[in-house]
Amino acid sequence: MSSSFGTLFKVTTFGESHCAAVGAIVDGCPAGIALGAADIQVQLDRRRPGQSALSTPRSEADPVSILSGVENGVTLGTTIGLLVPNADQHPEDYQEMAEVPRPSHADYTYQVKYGVRAQSGGGRASARETIGRVAAGAIAEKYLAQQHGIEIVAWVEGVGGLAAGRVDRETLTRQDVDQSPVRCPDPEAAQAMVELITEVKDNKDSIGGVVACVCRNVPAGLGEPVFDKLEALLAHAMLSLPASKGFEIGSGFTGSRMLGSEHNDPFVAKGGRLGTLTNHSGGVQGGISNGETIYFRVAFKPPATIGLKQRTAGFDGVQTDLEAKGRHDPCIVPRAVPVVESMAALVLMDLLLRQEFRKG
Amino acid sequence: MSSSFGTLFKVTTFGESHCAAVGAIVDGCPAGIALGAADIQVQLDRRRPGQSALSTPRSEADPVSILSGVENGVTLGTTIGLLVPNADQHPEDYQEMAEVPRPSHADYTYQVKYGVRAQSGGGRASARETIGRVAAGAIAEKYLAQQHGIEIVAWVEGVGGLAAGRVDRETLTRQDVDQSPVRCPDPEAAQAMVELITEVKDNKDSIGGVVACVCRNVPAGLGEPVFDKLEALLAHAMLSLPASKGFEIGSGFTGSRMLGSEHNDPFVAKGGRLGTLTNHSGGVQGGISNGETIYFRVAFKPPATIGLKQRTAGFDGVQTDLEAKGRHDPCIVPRAVPVVESMAALVLMDLLLRQEFRKG
Amino acid sequence: MSSSFGTLFKVTTFGESHCAAVGAIVDGCPAGIALGAADIQVQLDRRRPGQSALSTPRSEADPVSILSGVENGVTLGTTIGLLVPNADQHPEDYQEMAEVPRPSHADYTYQVKYGVRAQSGGGRASARETIGRVAAGAIAEKYLAQQHGIEIVAWVEGVGGLAAGRVDRETLTRQDVDQSPVRCPDPEAAQAMVELITEVKDNKDSIGGVVACVCRNVPAGLGEPVFDKLEALLAHAMLSLPASKGFEIGSGFTGSRMLGSEHNDPFVAKGGRLGTLTNHSGGVQGGISNGETIYFRVAFKPPATIGLKQRTAGFDGVQTDLEAKGRHDPCIVPRAVPVVESMAALVLMDLLLRQEFRKG
Amino acid sequence: MSSSFGTLFKVTTFGESHCAAVGAIVDGCPAGIALGAADIQVQLDRRRPGQSALSTPRSEADPVSILSGVENGVTLGTTIGLLVPNADQHPEDYQEMAEVPRPSHADYTYQVKYGVRAQSGGGRASARETIGRVAAGAIAEKYLAQQHGIEIVAWVEGVGGLAAGRVDRETLTRQDVDQSPVRCPDPEAAQAMVELITEVKDNKDSIGGVVACVCRNVPAGLGEPVFDKLEALLAHAMLSLPASKGFEIGSGFTGSRMLGSEHNDPFVAKGGRLGTLTNHSGGVQGGISNGETIYFRVAFKPPATIGLKQRTAGFDGVQTDLEAKGRHDPCIVPRAVPVVESMAALVLMDLLLRQEFRKG
Repeated sequence: MSSSFGTLFKVTTFGESHCAAVGAIVDGCPAGIALGAADIQVQLDRRRPGQSALSTPRSEADPVSILSGVENGVTLGTTIGLLVPNADQHPEDYQEMAEVPRPSHADYTYQVKYGVRAQSGGGRASARETIGRVAAGAIAEKYLAQQHGIEIVAWVEGVGGLAAGRVDRETLTRQDVDQSPVRCPDPEAAQAMVELITEVKDNKDSIGGVVACVCRNVPAGLGEPVFDKLEALLAHAMLSLPASKGFEIGSGFTGSRMLGSEHNDPFVAKGGRLGTLTNHSGGVQGGISNGETIYFRVAFKPPATIGLKQRTAGFDGVQTDLEAKGRHDPCIVPRAVPVVESMAALVLMDLLLRQEFRKG
Repeated sequence: MSSSFGTLFKVTTFGESHCAAVGAIVDGCPAGIALGAADIQVQLDRRRPGQSALSTPRSEADPVSILSGVENGVTLGTTIGLLVPNADQHPEDYQEMAEVPRPSHADYTYQVKYGVRAQSGGGRASARETIGRVAAGAIAEKYLAQQHGIEIVAWVEGVGGLAAGRVDRETLTRQDVDQSPVRCPDPEAAQAMVELITEVKDNKDSIGGVVACVCRNVPAGLGEPVFDKLEALLAHAMLSLPASKGFEIGSGFTGSRMLGSEHNDPFVAKGGRLGTLTNHSGGVQGGISNGETIYFRVAFKPPATIGLKQRTAGFDGVQTDLEAKGRHDPCIVPRAVPVVESMAALVLMDLLLRQEFRKG
Repeated sequence: MSSSFGTLFKVTTFGESHCAAVGAIVDGCPAGIALGAADIQVQLDRRRPGQSALSTPRSEADPVSILSGVENGVTLGTTIGLLVPNADQHPEDYQEMAEVPRPSHADYTYQVKYGVRAQSGGGRASARETIGRVAAGAIAEKYLAQQHGIEIVAWVEGVGGLAAGRVDRETLTRQDVDQSPVRCPDPEAAQAMVELITEVKDNKDSIGGVVACVCRNVPAGLGEPVFDKLEALLAHAMLSLPASKGFEIGSGFTGSRMLGSEHNDPFVAKGGRLGTLTNHSGGVQGGISNGETIYFRVAFKPPATIGLKQRTAGFDGVQTDLEAKGRHDPCIVPRAVPVVESMAALVLMDLLLRQEFRKG
Repeated sequence: MSSSFGTLFKVTTFGESHCAAVGAIVDGCPAGIALGAADIQVQLDRRRPGQSALSTPRSEADPVSILSGVENGVTLGTTIGLLVPNADQHPEDYQEMAEVPRPSHADYTYQVKYGVRAQSGGGRASARETIGRVAAGAIAEKYLAQQHGIEIVAWVEGVGGLAAGRVDRETLTRQDVDQSPVRCPDPEAAQAMVELITEVKDNKDSIGGVVACVCRNVPAGLGEPVFDKLEALLAHAMLSLPASKGFEIGSGFTGSRMLGSEHNDPFVAKGGRLGTLTNHSGGVQGGISNGETIYFRVAFKPPATIGLKQRTAGFDGVQTDLEAKGRHDPCIVPRAVPVVESMAALVLMDLLLRQEFRKG
């Protein structure tokens, strides 16, 4: 188990899906930042299931408490404890998994690795684990926005075979994104996605998707070659999310099919600094931010827990049919949007602190 | 600068493209492993430029010395120092970059971050930086192969718009891969790739590509959720490579377009353990290896340094024409093959050591 | 702020003296260990103030909750969240420190470092910070005792000029230690210490002391040269405790006055392994445990907060008189006993896990 | 094996006593610092054996090469590779240790831990391991001196029962220290120490000692509570040195015998900042530097390798007599002086970089 992320802005999360509470400790937050629970709650609410008919009806109020590190509404520079109680527990929904590991879920690998397993809900492999990430990320976001005007906006770019049309990366806002329950800012695609997810849900099946994200106003200079390049940390962060299977930055896999003369981003003077005319690099060159907008995409597979009957083997090796009972999220990408934003914020925050000492 | 990778098998690399030497220190290698320079040299030779007409003619002999940690051909359990001298230095080839940063290279971002820059060859952003990774990875590979029969094989799956046909992930060998100078095991595709790269080279341009990789016989249980999941560390490792822009494991971005009922890998009994019938998961579930073959793909953009004339701005912001002199690699993916293998080996080795204590 | 300790058994603590709660997250605890709150509470109760007339009457019940990582009384291998609410808050007692930093306390340095400061009670520099350490340490202790029979016993060896007589390091138990409220197992010395502390308390002054500690049945092989030698991690752990000023292992400073021929511990066969005839080394050679009993001593200065009038300067630089109001602990060493034991357990636990993979 | 030290200024060392080379990699050194081999050589020369008749006659020229990270005499911000070849090898001197582990040396514990052992000279447990530390420390020292005027001076305070008289901590220089071959700045004590060491050497015995160290002009604010307090990192650093057995800062063990009213350091205005009238704290309060001079002491046991006949057991458990052949250092503290300075520099440098981002 490795539940810490970051070098100077270090986040440690805890909590299974059905234990007493989930949460995080944030170590290394600068002092003197105005911070209240409301700053955090807004992203937790966006992450929460049950926001629309599209996701699992498990209704989690997820109220966060700041346990330490803040006094009179200002950070002290000390560790910030964050707690969200687990209220809605339905362990009985998961009893069949005691004997039959869900295909493509973590039941089997946790059992192999630990020799024991949370009886219910996937334990640390549950999506509920991301609460601590989002709570911590909200703190980073506040600092990045206040001190540097950094804006991070993610959205659903694809669900199954459906894709959003072109999005203006320089102007898109979270309000734009939240106009649709599926968090796709292209209204037509959004409508089709809603319909697709509804159909998938009715079929007791699930569907994958793609989340895209932009980070604007990131100062040039963030990233620590050769191993902690900006894109390496982003990739690490994104592939640590439940159900993620791919990451690409800037031109990504498309860039692998291009010529250098097409792909290279020529420099131009931009108000006292060098900028680039195009941005195939995705805001990163040599592992270091170059001052242009950072953008990347994350692929999520369909959720493993489905109500459809599946032919599979139990822990005993005997073939059987599994129909997962309970309520399952047919598509996690709308809820993954604030999680992706939070992980991006954690990466940028840590690299910002690692860079700032060089100003001295 | 962050030049260390790993928690228990920790690798630290050093060296610019034109300083006295490059190399690595490996900390945490188990004692009692037979090891000689020849074990390492073979992969360094595969990484070396000048192996075929396709790559830069800079001929680097790259002989490695083991400075410490090995006595009488056996590892002592102590830090292993690895050194490769820099012999072939052509700093004069790079003088125009003193005033004009190469588009999409690291010249500009290093200057912004550090306020100073190696005068030649990209410094730590040079491909030569990967020598230390390959040397260290060869040690990990030897251990993985000897102790666990783990096999790691990477190959070129795409160059520009060309793609290899289907490859048998369970049987492919490095010999198969090395049959063609482009390291694509599909002979027809390989021939087309050779022709494409030759054309690109003649045009003083460059071209991107995709490297695929399989890891076979990896025991179930490797990976440390929630932040050091196996795929998260692989993504981190691969996106830390020069010119990489994307990573996907198993079904990857394709998986984002699938239904759960299609994507889920049903369990079946396989000789005393549970295996899966399909392998969309790519050998990883819940961030932990499940005993099936791990496979992933890495996208590389075209090399930034090209001989073609580019209109860009100098550090002074004034528009100018840049034609990079010297000899440039038109396509790095054939040489990236052993580098990808090495980084995969470093990830697996570290996770293996982090897991093994649980056996106690 | 750096609130994490350990590499594989990683503990992160949070909490100021007067915020909502204090606690810890334990990452890396092996799965399958029987664990309940009672295992932890016993050491928290020994750490608690108000156990005798000797310490501060602030009565802290300090009931611990296990928030995660344990199900049906068994550890899951996942992160363990530990929470202790802060009940008894007297921020008004500390108002004079808003303007006058207590001499030799952390008020001034926290203000300089963070530019802001918990208004009361020393914030993270409060002794209350050690609750998280003790809670986490109790988990480590349980594992060490169950799996390896390791016994850790600390005691008060000195208070002011008073010192315990010779103690049998091989047989001393916690029950022996807890016979006296001052936790000195030598009854005569204990009585004198009680009288001294009472007198110091009546004088509104404070007094320093020394805690000694033994670790028995530690297997040979623990310690990671060259930087994470066993004694280096112990020294790190102990000097991170509030008010500690010195550490010595084995012969310590006395050993610096000895000849090699006196100090060397000759080897003798001990039931199938090599042991040593004497133990000036304190159970550690070359930074690695040798199988003999580990013992070390930690020096604590007198608590900085005293009721006696002190002539000092305010934050404004103006000389003034300071008499700390409220209730102050005249001597912390009796309560430091379980804290020292806990930190020793954290060090041994981490090194044990780092060593165990070598068995494979 | 754990051969890295530091978080932002990270040093990794390698090398046994009789392999090809020893050295270090420094990761995280700020760019733009003037640096040449001569800056490093001066401290390596002070560390070298054979400087006087007092130490082992093994004459090590120890010329350092800077392999990377520096161009045109200025640091690039990239990893700095440092190499010192091993020239003078006498493995034959150590052959008897193949069967009989030296009492109180690392022969036995390395064998137990690694199952294999450098055949000669103690491997990584050799004093030669400190070369990498000193080389890296010299770089830190240069930065600390240039950017902050920080001065670090260590000296021999005790040898056996002999102790230096009072030393002026505010004015002592390295020149003062180097006046005597024993590096004790009190001429009378120095003379007695020389005589004692000579006598011990003639007796084929060895003797312990104490090194004291001051760090002047350290800015207030360095140290990262709660686990990386300044004194905790210093203690870690010092107890990682070969043969060290104790550490104390400021009043140390003496402080444990004092009253709070004696020990507390009253604040006084000192030119725009608060300083303290006395300095029992040793420049550290709450784990953070307070702007006063830091001072600490390190106890070293006598070297384990002695020519005197010792009755001990072989690896086979059979009692035997051991007389170590070859040339042995009768007292290491004079040579430990630059090593202690270097480790102090590494700690301060790392904490300085960890603090500097807060200025932003």
